[in-house]
Amino acid sequence: MTETKKYAIGIDLGGTNLRVALVSEDGEIVRKIKKSSAEQVFDSVVNAIEELMKPDIAGIGLGVAGIIDRKMGRVLTSPNLHDVEGIDLVGELRNRFDIPVLMDNDANVAALGEKTGGAGRSFDNFVLLTLGTGIGGGIIHKGKLLDVSAEIGHMSINADGEKCPCGNIGCLETYASARAMISKAVSMLERDSESLLKECCKGSIYKITPEDIYKSALEGDRLSREILKDAGRYLGVGLANIINILSPEAIILAGGLIGAWNIYVQEAIREASRRAFRELFEAVRIIPSSLGDDAGIVGAASLVFTDIARGAD
Amino acid sequence: MTETKKYAIGIDLGGTNLRVALVSEDGEIVRKIKKSSAEQVFDSVVNAIEELMKPDIAGIGLGVAGIIDRKMGRVLTSPNLHDVEGIDLVGELRNRFDIPVLMDNDANVAALGEKTGGAGRSFDNFVLLTLGTGIGGGIIHKGKLLDVSAEIGHMSINADGEKCPCGNIGCLETYASARAMISKAVSMLERDSESLLKECCKGSIYKITPEDIYKSALEGDRLSREILKDAGRYLGVGLANIINILSPEAIILAGGLIGAWNIYVQEAIREASRRAFRELFEAVRIIPSSLGDDAGIVGAASLVFTDIARGAD
Repeated sequence: MTETKKYAIGIDLGGTNLRVALVSEDGEIVRKIKKSSAEQVFDSVVNAIEELMKPDIAGIGLGVAGIIDRKMGRVLTSPNLHDVEGIDLVGELRNRFDIPVLMDNDANVAALGEKTGGAGRSFDNFVLLTLGTGIGGGIIHKGKLLDVSAEIGHMSINADGEKCPCGNIGCLETYASARAMISKAVSMLERDSESLLKECCKGSIYKITPEDIYKSALEGDRLSREILKDAGRYLGVGLANIINILSPEAIILAGGLIGAWNIYVQEAIREASRRAFRELFEAVRIIPSSLGDDAGIVGAASLVFTDIARGAD
Repeated sequence: MTETKKYAIGIDLGGTNLRVALVSEDGEIVRKIKKSSAEQVFDSVVNAIEELMKPDIAGIGLGVAGIIDRKMGRVLTSPNLHDVEGIDLVGELRNRFDIPVLMDNDANVAALGEKTGGAGRSFDNFVLLTLGTGIGGGIIHKGKLLDVSAEIGHMSINADGEKCPCGNIGCLETYASARAMISKAVSMLERDSESLLKECCKGSIYKITPEDIYKSALEGDRLSREILKDAGRYLGVGLANIINILSPEAIILAGGLIGAWNIYVQEAIREASRRAFRELFEAVRIIPSSLGDDAGIVGAASLVFTDIARGAD
């Protein structure tokens, strides 16, 4: 008697692209499809599922940016994906494909992905942070996804600081994300600060990316270095808060910004080491994601298998 | 066959007093002893246990202020109880009484107490904050104590703010605790601000308590009101962070400062409502502790019963 491998479809509706994959129970990606987030999100999702569908699929898992009501399978609010707010995504997919459909927040799902098949495999308690345009968080506790919102990017670290589009003031995301870096670069260049950044992007400072900033910093540009270190320092405040509150074994950093590890993340680790309780800081490892952009699809598929395991308890 | 009730001894080494009690499995306090935290903490603990000891006691539970290594049963660091740092409190008590001895952080244990027999009984997911000289936290998740440090008072809410004795900068505790209120009152009175507080404490402004501040505020004193509202506003920043990260069903507030609920906590709730994600704020209840100072001893005893239940799994 041979045990057949189980497969699920994992969908990542977190970033600017829609990513859909057929994933095995142990986190192996069999086939994946990447589409730019079309206007018709729901139709794109359905088309991608149909392309990957095969008999005996265990279910469909979704990671969606925003505040998710897991139990009801509803997107309560999604800052970047307004078309999925209010749509009963889970119910519609369940009706159409007649298999289990699970949904969670994109960063939560990425944390689960790292646990299933990435840098979190050997840790039972870790926090994942996605460092990109915004900052998302997911918490693994005792080997399982902690069923909380984990909106770590919207923790205020400057009570009287800058207004965040979420409504809060001084959110970590306002100081340590790609959006924060770019906005600082643009405002400094508008004030005519000296910088190599002026030469990049064919002279349009409004097209600057974090990669440009990192590249300029490596070439010795002082402004770029300052922007990265500043954002890193604030990230370190966030890391210290996470360490003091959640005492994790590891913090796994994911997202585009970890490309700037040597300046941005190094500065964050240094700042966290100054701030967190020494005993807790010494017990934590701060490491990069190993799945990168695939964490979301692997984790989304894992939602299905975790749910099966829970049902079998 | 009659089922006999189980009992444990709960010890609270959190506040300025040592509290020890004989507690039943369902959280009922049979007898309790209160002593001022003597210099010889260990001897006082042993004496109190001997007074309460009876045959068939299930074990001893301890709640201790500080960072606790649960697995090893060690106090890693305790800001207010330096004599217990490094002492193998758990090992010594286990040897002496030959019964199970469990230890956890005082605020964690208070959260467990509220779950067993207090305001948390009807919630499966809540955060308890102890609002006193300092600010402590404990997290109940899916009905159980979450095994994390929960040092919520040492979450920075002002990255570039005031230095906290813990080593961090801008900790919630530095702005929203009794210590913060008193220090603000003293510094304002030293600068000769107009206030009814000048008349209290026989003219010694260095003996002012949060009760004095609250009383003066109720009598219309503007400075006192400002101090309470300021501290409350910062507490609200902390509450919003807790809500955004942990999406609890309830936040239970405990400790001496909740006596000032009508000004201090009301302001905090108002501030949190402005800052947290609306969907998450609407789902949380912010309520007072019902066990008050007894939460620690009830929770400490509960550590023993929780451990027995875990062993039986």
